[in-house]
Amino acid sequence: MALTEFDIIRQFFMSESFAADHPHLVKGPGDDAAILSLPDDHDLLVSVDTLNESVHFLPDAEPSLLAARCLAVNVSDLAAMGASPLGFTLALSLPQVSLSWLQAFSEGLAKAALDADCPLIGGDTTRGPLSITIQVHGMVPRGQALLRSGASAGDAVYVTGTLGDAAAALWWMQGDSRFSAKGLSSTEEQHLLEAFYQPANRIAVGKALRGIASAALDLSDGLASDLRHILKASSVSGARIEAGQLPVSEVLKQRVSRSDQIELAMGGGDDYELCVCIPPARIREAEAAVAALQVPFTRIGQLSNDPEMMVIASDGSTMDLKATGYHHFQSHSS
Amino acid sequence: MALTEFDIIRQFFMSESFAADHPHLVKGPGDDAAILSLPDDHDLLVSVDTLNESVHFLPDAEPSLLAARCLAVNVSDLAAMGASPLGFTLALSLPQVSLSWLQAFSEGLAKAALDADCPLIGGDTTRGPLSITIQVHGMVPRGQALLRSGASAGDAVYVTGTLGDAAAALWWMQGDSRFSAKGLSSTEEQHLLEAFYQPANRIAVGKALRGIASAALDLSDGLASDLRHILKASSVSGARIEAGQLPVSEVLKQRVSRSDQIELAMGGGDDYELCVCIPPARIREAEAAVAALQVPFTRIGQLSNDPEMMVIASDGSTMDLKATGYHHFQSHSS
Repeated sequence: MALTEFDIIRQFFMSESFAADHPHLVKGPGDDAAILSLPDDHDLLVSVDTLNESVHFLPDAEPSLLAARCLAVNVSDLAAMGASPLGFTLALSLPQVSLSWLQAFSEGLAKAALDADCPLIGGDTTRGPLSITIQVHGMVPRGQALLRSGASAGDAVYVTGTLGDAAAALWWMQGDSRFSAKGLSSTEEQHLLEAFYQPANRIAVGKALRGIASAALDLSDGLASDLRHILKASSVSGARIEAGQLPVSEVLKQRVSRSDQIELAMGGGDDYELCVCIPPARIREAEAAVAALQVPFTRIGQLSNDPEMMVIASDGSTMDLKATGYHHFQSHSS
Repeated sequence: MALTEFDIIRQFFMSESFAADHPHLVKGPGDDAAILSLPDDHDLLVSVDTLNESVHFLPDAEPSLLAARCLAVNVSDLAAMGASPLGFTLALSLPQVSLSWLQAFSEGLAKAALDADCPLIGGDTTRGPLSITIQVHGMVPRGQALLRSGASAGDAVYVTGTLGDAAAALWWMQGDSRFSAKGLSSTEEQHLLEAFYQPANRIAVGKALRGIASAALDLSDGLASDLRHILKASSVSGARIEAGQLPVSEVLKQRVSRSDQIELAMGGGDDYELCVCIPPARIREAEAAVAALQVPFTRIGQLSNDPEMMVIASDGSTMDLKATGYHHFQSHSS
């Protein structure tokens, strides 16, 4: 039987670079379903995200970077649960077959999969408007997943890495005047592109904080919006975030105004850093665990019994949060 | 914080009718990932399929039937592996928000989920051209999944149900002259619509044949095409299929010519019946196991050392298979 063009496409994702060598993968692509064998006494975690052309990425997005971002935003959900990756599936809709696009996309995906130790285990390739749906699978020792619902007033709030870089990258790519692009160095460009397309994998941080953190999630819509998910799930009414403690990169400090730095750090989406709550008694342990991984881990405030979340300026005044509640994108996942 | 329209949409899928009450679901939608707890000594199975508007279904497809079909084609992959469903995720892209469409879609999905005992455990809803990606999760006792690769020459080939009805339904819906629609009764219409949109769930058959069948898959592209996957995976060169044994429905017998009945049974896609290979020594056991479920289970031929697959007419002559190798759709999953 002759191969259809979609059979050929599938072979891009069954190449040597995707040779799925993972201790828990029994059977990858090629049967009716993939088979994973979890160790006993572990829970399975699954999370799915779709990225659509012109909604979540620009039509001319570089395919290898796009592939990396698609996997990274999903792996980030596993990190936020304290899980170890098991593998991912790819459901790819393509309007037409471009071998050069597929080559670059599959290379970027294979590299990102290797980086996250998260092999491709199955998928579906079909004709349609360009759309990429990735589902990741992970595991934690039974009962040890980091939920959003365990935090209490008084817990310290921490974030990994720096905030606002992905949103600043979008300002830069879209020529927004709030981003001062004049004389941008190649190092700065690289920083912005990586922040947007290749957010760092925080799996090790999530694992290190199992049994220590009271709640965790990854920052996809922006800190102000995402932290409210923790408040709601944990039945905590308020939080005090200190503007002066928000970790921002040198690029942000150089290229946007101070007020926009806070705007981006609080409201910019797509950072895919972790936001973690730590009970006071576990702070030293948490800081030591993350310091050992050499990942920036900054205390930015604490949960409180205030009637709502507040951002405190360095002079002690309360800043207006309404300005920081915007959404970059319409995508939400659960 | 105000709800976005996509927050509202998500609530269609977190309603009481989706109240996920499944013994292995620890946490459904609402955190960074869903959590499943498999019993020890079981393997996990995952399969994903995308259906795109105008590619896999017509733009005016009735949303509740469409939802049922999307879940059914995925559950069918679990049935073909001998797995029990654990739950599914839904990644839904919508061009705009139609509450009536969403209401019908979510009702159809909830009904199909209940029928398959396969609850919704998570998902992503986003803006984009209408596209539905469902991933199902199932389990089998460790090592007992029914693969495509265990068959041998001499094994009998069986199928469940009747073949060709979904492809005939498509002929009917598209006004194809090969389908004689004149005076079609409402019973016949119902049969065709159910064949296309609500293929029967064969989970019980797959489970009953664990440890008995040598190979199995579900029929999505058509018997001629799909059986070749078993031949290839099992390294068997040929098969002899008896045209006179192919199970066809009364509607097919009444509404298409005898040669088209064979054409549809061998080459028509979307039946989502199981095709199963049974070693000669296990035939009595297999037939008894499926008979107990009151599911039609028909022996249609056997695998052989012939150089290729052949269809044998009732007079013993070999029929041309080339005419039956067409694809209805471009979707393939692994």
